Amino acid sequence: MGSTWGKNLNITIFGESHGFAIGVTIDGFPAGVELDTVFIDKQMARRRPSSSSFSTKRKEADEAEILSGIKDGHTTGAPITAIIRNSDQHSGDYEEMMRIPRPSHADYTASIRYENFHDVRGGGHFSGRLTAPIVFCGALCRLALRRSQIETVAHIKRIYDVEDKPFDLTDISKDEILRLQNASFPVLDEGAGASMMLIFETAKEKLDSVGGIIECAVTGLPAGLGSPMFEGIENKISSLIFGIPAVKGIEFGTGFGFAGMFGSEANDPFIIENEKIRAKTNNNGGILGGISTGMPVVFRTAIKPTPSIGQTQKSVDMVSHTETELSIKGRHDPCIVPRAVPVIENAAAIAVLDMMLEKNGYSGI
Amino acid sequence: MGSTWGKNLNITIFGESHGFAIGVTIDGFPAGVELDTVFIDKQMARRRPSSSSFSTKRKEADEAEILSGIKDGHTTGAPITAIIRNSDQHSGDYEEMMRIPRPSHADYTASIRYENFHDVRGGGHFSGRLTAPIVFCGALCRLALRRSQIETVAHIKRIYDVEDKPFDLTDISKDEILRLQNASFPVLDEGAGASMMLIFETAKEKLDSVGGIIECAVTGLPAGLGSPMFEGIENKISSLIFGIPAVKGIEFGTGFGFAGMFGSEANDPFIIENEKIRAKTNNNGGILGGISTGMPVVFRTAIKPTPSIGQTQKSVDMVSHTETELSIKGRHDPCIVPRAVPVIENAAAIAVLDMMLEKNGYSGI
Amino acid sequence: MGSTWGKNLNITIFGESHGFAIGVTIDGFPAGVELDTVFIDKQMARRRPSSSSFSTKRKEADEAEILSGIKDGHTTGAPITAIIRNSDQHSGDYEEMMRIPRPSHADYTASIRYENFHDVRGGGHFSGRLTAPIVFCGALCRLALRRSQIETVAHIKRIYDVEDKPFDLTDISKDEILRLQNASFPVLDEGAGASMMLIFETAKEKLDSVGGIIECAVTGLPAGLGSPMFEGIENKISSLIFGIPAVKGIEFGTGFGFAGMFGSEANDPFIIENEKIRAKTNNNGGILGGISTGMPVVFRTAIKPTPSIGQTQKSVDMVSHTETELSIKGRHDPCIVPRAVPVIENAAAIAVLDMMLEKNGYSGI
Amino acid sequence: MGSTWGKNLNITIFGESHGFAIGVTIDGFPAGVELDTVFIDKQMARRRPSSSSFSTKRKEADEAEILSGIKDGHTTGAPITAIIRNSDQHSGDYEEMMRIPRPSHADYTASIRYENFHDVRGGGHFSGRLTAPIVFCGALCRLALRRSQIETVAHIKRIYDVEDKPFDLTDISKDEILRLQNASFPVLDEGAGASMMLIFETAKEKLDSVGGIIECAVTGLPAGLGSPMFEGIENKISSLIFGIPAVKGIEFGTGFGFAGMFGSEANDPFIIENEKIRAKTNNNGGILGGISTGMPVVFRTAIKPTPSIGQTQKSVDMVSHTETELSIKGRHDPCIVPRAVPVIENAAAIAVLDMMLEKNGYSGI
Repeated sequence: MGSTWGKNLNITIFGESHGFAIGVTIDGFPAGVELDTVFIDKQMARRRPSSSSFSTKRKEADEAEILSGIKDGHTTGAPITAIIRNSDQHSGDYEEMMRIPRPSHADYTASIRYENFHDVRGGGHFSGRLTAPIVFCGALCRLALRRSQIETVAHIKRIYDVEDKPFDLTDISKDEILRLQNASFPVLDEGAGASMMLIFETAKEKLDSVGGIIECAVTGLPAGLGSPMFEGIENKISSLIFGIPAVKGIEFGTGFGFAGMFGSEANDPFIIENEKIRAKTNNNGGILGGISTGMPVVFRTAIKPTPSIGQTQKSVDMVSHTETELSIKGRHDPCIVPRAVPVIENAAAIAVLDMMLEKNGYSGI
Repeated sequence: MGSTWGKNLNITIFGESHGFAIGVTIDGFPAGVELDTVFIDKQMARRRPSSSSFSTKRKEADEAEILSGIKDGHTTGAPITAIIRNSDQHSGDYEEMMRIPRPSHADYTASIRYENFHDVRGGGHFSGRLTAPIVFCGALCRLALRRSQIETVAHIKRIYDVEDKPFDLTDISKDEILRLQNASFPVLDEGAGASMMLIFETAKEKLDSVGGIIECAVTGLPAGLGSPMFEGIENKISSLIFGIPAVKGIEFGTGFGFAGMFGSEANDPFIIENEKIRAKTNNNGGILGGISTGMPVVFRTAIKPTPSIGQTQKSVDMVSHTETELSIKGRHDPCIVPRAVPVIENAAAIAVLDMMLEKNGYSGI
Repeated sequence: MGSTWGKNLNITIFGESHGFAIGVTIDGFPAGVELDTVFIDKQMARRRPSSSSFSTKRKEADEAEILSGIKDGHTTGAPITAIIRNSDQHSGDYEEMMRIPRPSHADYTASIRYENFHDVRGGGHFSGRLTAPIVFCGALCRLALRRSQIETVAHIKRIYDVEDKPFDLTDISKDEILRLQNASFPVLDEGAGASMMLIFETAKEKLDSVGGIIECAVTGLPAGLGSPMFEGIENKISSLIFGIPAVKGIEFGTGFGFAGMFGSEANDPFIIENEKIRAKTNNNGGILGGISTGMPVVFRTAIKPTPSIGQTQKSVDMVSHTETELSIKGRHDPCIVPRAVPVIENAAAIAVLDMMLEKNGYSGI
Repeated sequence: MGSTWGKNLNITIFGESHGFAIGVTIDGFPAGVELDTVFIDKQMARRRPSSSSFSTKRKEADEAEILSGIKDGHTTGAPITAIIRNSDQHSGDYEEMMRIPRPSHADYTASIRYENFHDVRGGGHFSGRLTAPIVFCGALCRLALRRSQIETVAHIKRIYDVEDKPFDLTDISKDEILRLQNASFPVLDEGAGASMMLIFETAKEKLDSVGGIIECAVTGLPAGLGSPMFEGIENKISSLIFGIPAVKGIEFGTGFGFAGMFGSEANDPFIIENEKIRAKTNNNGGILGGISTGMPVVFRTAIKPTPSIGQTQKSVDMVSHTETELSIKGRHDPCIVPRAVPVIENAAAIAVLDMMLEKNGYSGI
């Protein structure tokens, strides 16, 4: 298996980059959620390749066709399947791929795992294109979560050596959320954003790519969501987010920053604010013992530079078993981080909805 | 739910810090694995509180009593349940806890999640003591994995501002593995280890605690293990490891370091070495597309400072709904990182065995 | 949830009778299985409505379009999604259904479960039409199982008061299997088959329907497949087969017949035959302790009369909360048992493949 | 795996007949349920061997020791583990079992499945003794269900050729429920009960055993519980109930009786009764489309004669690969049906609680 996730929702992402279609099948989605296609299309558009400096030129219509589970503009409670037809394919670019695996791509591991029966064209099922149905699914989940005033929002936290401002872990304003959710290049510090653009140009010129960090917040979560040990919020989110290609690390709240702190600095004192129990600081990223505190849940993900670069690289010929070189043709983003922002922002909603569909926090039945 | 993990193995960790017993029930463990109680006891002993400077003085015998699933010194294939009786309890220390949640502990979130029916004594089911059955379970898994020459090993990578040497991602020698697995304070650089000890002393004197990073490697994994998207090695390991209290971040291979790299630096070229396909560098930590490359799988986890500190802290009284102070009595480690090393080293084996029990990498049935 | 099944395979059946399409998404299907579209089409055709006396006249092309997971005529190991477009819809027939639930249909329970957001047209997601993707999925599984000489075969065991001959539980010949798999009306006793046809005519004339029993066998299973307690063969098969609309009972081997037997009659003595251990009788239907014995696995399912009958029936108006009458228009099979035979024959293969993909029966890893 | 069941509850049954202990680990049990040990003990006692004519004389104290998940007489929400120590063991009776499998027992299939590493003593993990923790677990679930006035009740429907009266599918009175739940030999027709006793005597004299049918009802279920296709009530209950040794068939409502009916007889008309929508008849056993109608859920299970009989039987020697004979020593029930009644009555509650813990029937989140 592999492409299936969830306990209360069961989602399966299917399709290959150069196959007939990609899509998602979702079982367990609650009935009666109004379908806001404008919102969903907007999320799809944010992920879609654009003419900006950091993106490929592949033309993907990326229109999701919903085949089931919707009637009269509302979810029915039955499984939802949505597909996106593939159209703009240049598989010729990838012919030698069956023999010469691209460094840091899944070509080599897939050839072993699937005994060379995998579809290697365009990365096949391992392609970043498979994030389109994740965005669709996540956007749908956000429609359900909005009934409970739960929002997910993300921004580019870092590109190479340029750092954006971090979220204020204790308070993320609705205005800021709205602004970032609608920004074409979501950063908190526009100056940092401009510097990031320069790095993209450099990478592009050098036929290279560059990595970064995305910071994502979930706001509006009630306290008491999640479970101890293996079904905590960290476990749920990480088990989903590592399904996004190129993600190689995740941290919650202060995350790896905790390593350099004393407990007296790190602990989040409880306070009363507007008659509610809150934490004064939020180093724990809104999660204690796997369960939500009611503070914003904040996590950061490390995104590796896309391994598809124009420079000539060393690899091996798996047939002749000799060392060789390859240069990847085709169109590739110098940096996938900007397009990964809506992917993570929407994917986070899948994990959160799955947890909201758990009947917990209640002693009765 | 929450305390259950696994697909091919199904493990449930049960018990409370000051209840009758803690333990684990494991279903799906392969039959015919020889029980090496000396090895298991050694792993349990490594986690057990000791008289060293960084540990509590709680006397825990921590003897695992195996109730089922073993006969004539071998696993039978039937579920294995092992329990560890609790003995040395001072629940009186924790009396006010139901009203005044300890900052950065799960007291507050548990009280909401379980409507005050949770066992708050000693942290109850959220206690670090629950890592003892994780170690037992992981040690058992290692006995199975050793048949395939798969090893897990970990060391303290960082305490506060002191960094240990990192693993060589491309090659971890058997000698080094053996040395670390048997070290009372596992570091690669003994000088760094000595500096870490000084930090523990400082923390102890200040009635404080301190965080750190643990680096763990899995060696001997065949290429082709794991699955794309949501059942990749990163997903599996992170979904398990975040079940260990105090873990707030995880990264694989170069992890967050990827954010500051160009693709041309980050990509791992394939080479032929001793007639085998290998990667020249291993920034991807032995994982491409969720699937093992055959290189060492390396991950790092951020461990927050234990929130139990002797200093007076601010909190709230959940009954009177007012702000107040509390000072935590009892015995607490100034740093849980050293004792978390065997927890992570053994827990990693659970995730790996679960994947080894998947019938993948084979086109036939 | 509901429409998702499986552990090693994860299948989700989606779609509604009068929606855009129905279909199936399958994750975990092994790579390298050759796609025999002739075989699959034949299975689809067997389930399709025909002009025979027992079937509806709805014209369903029922052509499955495979969108993913296949390349160069082989499975790739990535998720497989296949869809069947709906075309011949007369939703007008079903207009009053939202108010007046059809007796013994799911209209009433769906309206409560999904708070009236369900698609009621043609039964929506509860329609017997949803068995088409089950047949597709099962046919695909049979292609994998044939590599191991595992076959599934079914026949009509009973219609009203007419009984077909039962399978010989100890030995089902390859010729008989082949004949039944290709029969348009699969029975062992052609005389019984002729009598069944007369009953269909009677039911048709009376605008009525009639129930029956289907007997299904799985041959070629190796001994040692399945697991004790809740993952035994009986559990697996029944948890899948009750997903087929109108199934209301299942029994294995001698099944309910055991109630009238003494142990000395019921026990299956072991014998040596052709140097192999076999059972002399097979009252246990090839399963002991949930695990296969190597004898044929045989089960029978009770199929209730299709509740869609032309006669005027009593029901209630859920809006006015009064008793009323309804007469179901449209085209309905007087007996769904014949078309359910290929559904069960193919569905059984899904359960068996899921178990064959379990890495059990091996002490090593 | 095998001994683990459930989605919202995760239960694992562990232990062997002649091992140290048997027991159950339950994750996901709701917090705040009051522990009624008198009720639980009573259920355990009903299953326990007694001095009656149909039972073995093995003395099992069967006292469940609860190790976790309970505090101050209430469930805490954390996993519950309960163990029952084994004491009265005569393993010597079973020595030859590794070589000569008992007909219709799991000895043969277990030896293949677990490569002879299974514990064969007393049937090991396959023993009927493993139903004790199922009863414990089910009794606990009933305590939760009683908050919602949901009851489970069962009686002996048939022994050999003696039939008890069936439940009235449309209405089972509270008095009748109470009487059966407390009866030492639960039947609706005392005359039939007396005849059954005579059959037990006959079986005992002949060193034989005899089979039967148990009928079980779940009352008080709200309409709208369960899900379509594979998570319907039939699927859930059957996937659990086939985990009870000796169960070889299950039917819901009229079950196999549907085979001999016309739709006009079989359909359950909706009516208004006391201002509520109900069904006039209940052939569907309270389930339509997998979802509860609000009528009693009724199912019947076929119980095979216990294969442990005193008569000499034919079997094979798996070492010498020759045919041989064996006679089973030890103490065995001539009929396990009476003791299986509380097993099924309590087990049903596990399936129902799992479904009640699903957040369904609600469009909101």
